[in-house]
Amino acid sequence: MRTLKVDLGEHSYPIHIGAELLTRPELITSLLGPTNVVVTDTRVAPLYLTALQTAIGDHITDAVVLPEGEANKTIDGVMHIIDTLTLSACGRDTVLVALGGGVIGDMTGFAASIYLRGVDFIQIPTTLLAQVDASVGGKTGVNHEHGKNLIGAFHQPRCVVADTLTLRSLDPRQYRAGLAEVIKHALLADAGFFDWLENNMTALLEQDSAALDHAIARCCEIKAEVVAKDEREQGLRAVLNLGHTFAHAIECDTAFRWLHGEAVATGLVLAARLSHVQGLIDRDTVRRIRALVEAAGLPVQAPEISAENWRAWMRVDKKSAAGKLRFVLLDAIGQAHLAGDVSAAGLDEVLHGAHL
Amino acid sequence: MRTLKVDLGEHSYPIHIGAELLTRPELITSLLGPTNVVVTDTRVAPLYLTALQTAIGDHITDAVVLPEGEANKTIDGVMHIIDTLTLSACGRDTVLVALGGGVIGDMTGFAASIYLRGVDFIQIPTTLLAQVDASVGGKTGVNHEHGKNLIGAFHQPRCVVADTLTLRSLDPRQYRAGLAEVIKHALLADAGFFDWLENNMTALLEQDSAALDHAIARCCEIKAEVVAKDEREQGLRAVLNLGHTFAHAIECDTAFRWLHGEAVATGLVLAARLSHVQGLIDRDTVRRIRALVEAAGLPVQAPEISAENWRAWMRVDKKSAAGKLRFVLLDAIGQAHLAGDVSAAGLDEVLHGAHL
Repeated sequence: MRTLKVDLGEHSYPIHIGAELLTRPELITSLLGPTNVVVTDTRVAPLYLTALQTAIGDHITDAVVLPEGEANKTIDGVMHIIDTLTLSACGRDTVLVALGGGVIGDMTGFAASIYLRGVDFIQIPTTLLAQVDASVGGKTGVNHEHGKNLIGAFHQPRCVVADTLTLRSLDPRQYRAGLAEVIKHALLADAGFFDWLENNMTALLEQDSAALDHAIARCCEIKAEVVAKDEREQGLRAVLNLGHTFAHAIECDTAFRWLHGEAVATGLVLAARLSHVQGLIDRDTVRRIRALVEAAGLPVQAPEISAENWRAWMRVDKKSAAGKLRFVLLDAIGQAHLAGDVSAAGLDEVLHGAHL
Repeated sequence: MRTLKVDLGEHSYPIHIGAELLTRPELITSLLGPTNVVVTDTRVAPLYLTALQTAIGDHITDAVVLPEGEANKTIDGVMHIIDTLTLSACGRDTVLVALGGGVIGDMTGFAASIYLRGVDFIQIPTTLLAQVDASVGGKTGVNHEHGKNLIGAFHQPRCVVADTLTLRSLDPRQYRAGLAEVIKHALLADAGFFDWLENNMTALLEQDSAALDHAIARCCEIKAEVVAKDEREQGLRAVLNLGHTFAHAIECDTAFRWLHGEAVATGLVLAARLSHVQGLIDRDTVRRIRALVEAAGLPVQAPEISAENWRAWMRVDKKSAAGKLRFVLLDAIGQAHLAGDVSAAGLDEVLHGAHL
């Protein structure tokens, strides 16, 4: 087991990464309260709720099982969690335990942030996406019919337990989607890690335990470092959204039929192409990025979206300021910045022009 | 005009208090963004929305008019505000302007705290209750069918503009309800202010301008001082809830037919009696408190509530820890503390015994 620390002053917390951590109650029992409510979904509950109950059952007051999927990441789902908390007369010393993927983590964290104006929560992410991304940074929230994650809060967990063995039960498509965020972290901060990924993608696709531990830990370290410098996303942290302005539009336009990671994968390729069009990186670098995304079995080509829809979806993205679109661009593999001055013609070429 | 500063580091903000401030756009224009949405209700809109539009109309993107009243302080109302923000493609630099009483301030502040994980808001409180209480402290939120303010966040406004002339249009019952919070502030922190209130209650009931400015400013100072020491309500701040454990139960049991301030007024008398039963203050002090509440035209006697209901409503109060009831008690007029050790018999005597 590896343990990292996300350094956020009084909001600091540990991330434990390794196999079979679900059966190690000592990692979380000291953080639990007099009442503790587990939140999970219909996919994860049959797989791991019993294991968690075996480990910390004495401490669990209640369990909420939500319907699985991004389409259910709504304010109604959060209210369902809160209904359960009020019915169990949960006080401010209640701890919520999120057992599941990013959707469950986001909803549970948001419920924890607004119930009684804030209670603690612990994350036990069971998808690769959640282990490398959603469990670091404290972003919580839900979708709105007009856009993804439009409602939410910053609320840090007290602890994250990433049991890599839970990834075995993941649908292969979901697992690959998580690899998109792994590639993203390398792209925005660590050229050496990008090289490593080019050499170890097969091992990762086979869920080799050592490769997995390394990749998850490196992603959490990169993200934790960026978040520690900018907890409330005032500037620097925006680079973590590499590919995400495009990805949000793709997810919205496909009504979430594309998984988040699939949309991010294509978003990374689009961001690379936009960086090239803006004169920042050369054509070979774009090809290298596209090749790694393809090697991970992820889509490199956006679905058909009208120019009008691209604009509309991207405009409600949280990064837009004063109606102006902003994109994270690459200066090189391992180096990214937030740009507010992307040319309309350049963007048009990337979205609708002939592809590289 | 008086201006106080609520000192909360990077969350510090000014409170301007005086007559006819609504017509002084310079107090807020520098804080506005490229898009600004006013939130108000069906009672206040016909009275003051035009005046505000005359003052800062060029800056206003949209106005949301919600149905008035505590019963409408729901998550659905907040979602209605957020729907408007998404339809106007409001970005992170949007500023919400709350024009109304505590309900509008709480809902607007909560919407601002969760929209895009946090945008700015400005408060223009138009009730006495909101001017002396809701506009200091950063507590925002909505009610849940199982209890008051069970859902919410801490989110500080950028500025508060308390125009005392807007109180003239207030229903006399609402105005008196605001006086309950004025009395509360004196009781918990300032014996001299309590004396002043005993001598100036008539002037306050007549809305004498000088008396009003003094009372509002003193309350804001007291609350700001307590909040500055404990922004996230870890301990000290709990004294601001003097009378509120009882008040929340009264409001819930009467389905909000009692106004918040009326419930607080009775809550203050109950808290005084509980303090007496616990041996902290003498009978004459209780009588003095009861007399001032009565002089303000406020109820001193709780409605008929069953023992079971008292317990149930008080148990979901946010101050309860590990299922244990906690009350703010008085050591003297001007001095209060949070007690976790109230005897069941003492509480029973206060709620159901013969009255003083």
